[in-house]
Amino acid sequence: MTLVNTVCRLAARPIGLPKPSDWEVADEPVGGPADGEFLVRVEYLSVDPAMRTWMNAGRSYVAPVQIGEVMRAGGIGRVIDSRHPDFAAGDEVYGMFGVQRYAHSDGSGVTRVDTTLAPAPVHLGALGISGITAYFGLLDVGRPQPGQTVVVSGAAGSVGSIVGQVARIVGCRAIGIAGGEQKCRWLVEELGFDAAIDYQAGDLRRQLKMHAPNGIDVFFDNVGGEVLEAGLSRLARGARVVICGAISQYNAAGELHGPANYMQLLVARASMTGFVVFDYADRYGEAVGQLANWLASGELRAREQVVAGDVGDFPEVLLALFRGENTGKLVLALR
Amino acid sequence: MTLVNTVCRLAARPIGLPKPSDWEVADEPVGGPADGEFLVRVEYLSVDPAMRTWMNAGRSYVAPVQIGEVMRAGGIGRVIDSRHPDFAAGDEVYGMFGVQRYAHSDGSGVTRVDTTLAPAPVHLGALGISGITAYFGLLDVGRPQPGQTVVVSGAAGSVGSIVGQVARIVGCRAIGIAGGEQKCRWLVEELGFDAAIDYQAGDLRRQLKMHAPNGIDVFFDNVGGEVLEAGLSRLARGARVVICGAISQYNAAGELHGPANYMQLLVARASMTGFVVFDYADRYGEAVGQLANWLASGELRAREQVVAGDVGDFPEVLLALFRGENTGKLVLALR
Repeated sequence: MTLVNTVCRLAARPIGLPKPSDWEVADEPVGGPADGEFLVRVEYLSVDPAMRTWMNAGRSYVAPVQIGEVMRAGGIGRVIDSRHPDFAAGDEVYGMFGVQRYAHSDGSGVTRVDTTLAPAPVHLGALGISGITAYFGLLDVGRPQPGQTVVVSGAAGSVGSIVGQVARIVGCRAIGIAGGEQKCRWLVEELGFDAAIDYQAGDLRRQLKMHAPNGIDVFFDNVGGEVLEAGLSRLARGARVVICGAISQYNAAGELHGPANYMQLLVARASMTGFVVFDYADRYGEAVGQLANWLASGELRAREQVVAGDVGDFPEVLLALFRGENTGKLVLALR
Repeated sequence: MTLVNTVCRLAARPIGLPKPSDWEVADEPVGGPADGEFLVRVEYLSVDPAMRTWMNAGRSYVAPVQIGEVMRAGGIGRVIDSRHPDFAAGDEVYGMFGVQRYAHSDGSGVTRVDTTLAPAPVHLGALGISGITAYFGLLDVGRPQPGQTVVVSGAAGSVGSIVGQVARIVGCRAIGIAGGEQKCRWLVEELGFDAAIDYQAGDLRRQLKMHAPNGIDVFFDNVGGEVLEAGLSRLARGARVVICGAISQYNAAGELHGPANYMQLLVARASMTGFVVFDYADRYGEAVGQLANWLASGELRAREQVVAGDVGDFPEVLLALFRGENTGKLVLALR
């Protein structure tokens, strides 16, 4: 039996929001695994803001996806055929399998996933790269001390929602910035954030002043633009600004918006530090173990927004991120 | 005998470059010192880019100079009358005496100056706040390792010229960015910088790429604007960006120019940190001792541009800074 693979390839470098013509979705035959390889049937795809940055040319923290290449994506699937000594048919695995139905792998960067512990989408979210990003970005880069104030932007997203909860767990006051009243209510009522600020509702700086009267000790930024500037305007002495993402800027077609008030770093004797979670690969186990404990104890709550669809639905699901439609981890479950 | 004090007061908050009408220069009688005070005849005034920021309202690292207040300035002078137990007539002293001929002081923040060791202007420059700023900003905030590449902007200024030389002393490659061929030649031929880039001459990014082919490990920024952006575009992995000043932005009348490519901090896993030299007050002695040793051994060269004038000349001398007319430390010697 010949399997048919549906693949989603990058057809053009988008200007602004990706358009349908920036993608090419095609059906292709897929062969069996070569020696030392295995074949995965992809079941869940991680849908992340950073994907937009992978579509651009130029220097970044990973190589750009090339035109004609299968779109890069993390995913979870099941091994259906193997000529690899460490993986057997039936294994559930995580890896950068790409936006496609079937993927060949030589095992590089592939880990086993225990879906008896938690459902697959959780392994892409709170127990996956999103949770690990929140864990190291907050604890290693942000270095919050008990009693300090942590503010996270994109707080209702896959990383932000974990950041605020971990901040609470380690004894900080957690304030989230999110878009819309519903997300804000969820952050406070369901996740236990001390406060949430709806940036769509008006004067963000005034609201930050109200909720962080002694200033912000750790500002964990997923958003950039005016949200970052508002955070910089309220830094406490010695604050740490953690640069994790800049979703507000990823689809900017013109010049990017840099923080005009970056000299507040001097006023506050503060630092702004960028990090990439991949650098922590040899410590992922530590993060996942701790996050799993917190999930088991109920101290941490995970939320995924799972959309069922086909490989060809990926372009549209990606856009939902930039419309702010997701709460928690956005996952495309392949039907 | 009644002394007449000439004072330079802030008359209005400048928009853009300070205009003559932003100042009020007046002659006023000055009384003798009260009990616990002494009277200083100011002889040298430190003229620094940061002064422009002190003239603005709003949150900064020091309180703004108020309208009607004597302009804040560091200076060196001689005690001419004292009712203070620790200072006697004849003592040469440094303090924030302000832009005026005579200053009362209760001794707060005042230190004795040994002009047998070095002329007074050096105590405002390489052995003063400029040198101390360079020392802690580079060594404590920038943390350069031997063999690394240090790039400093405003390299021909009072702080920048020391930064590059100290970088060389601790075993780094030092590259300066300055305005004009003459300054650049001075940096390389007189101060021993490994290279100097004239930002007025053209493509700064290309020149940085050429002179720092493996990237910048420490970017010490005194300039901001496009110079900062060029530095960010060439950071090495794990780089430290030291935010000391932003002279290109101090007179901007409209919106400030933030670094549009600040996400390079993420790409490079780099940090950008602001600092204020006053925080190191209890370690000034360490810096001055070390800088004096390097001056004595000839490893460090100090340069001052001393302009003779009256208190009323201060506004015009300050503007010379923003026209990039000074090389080394700009000092107003009161006639």
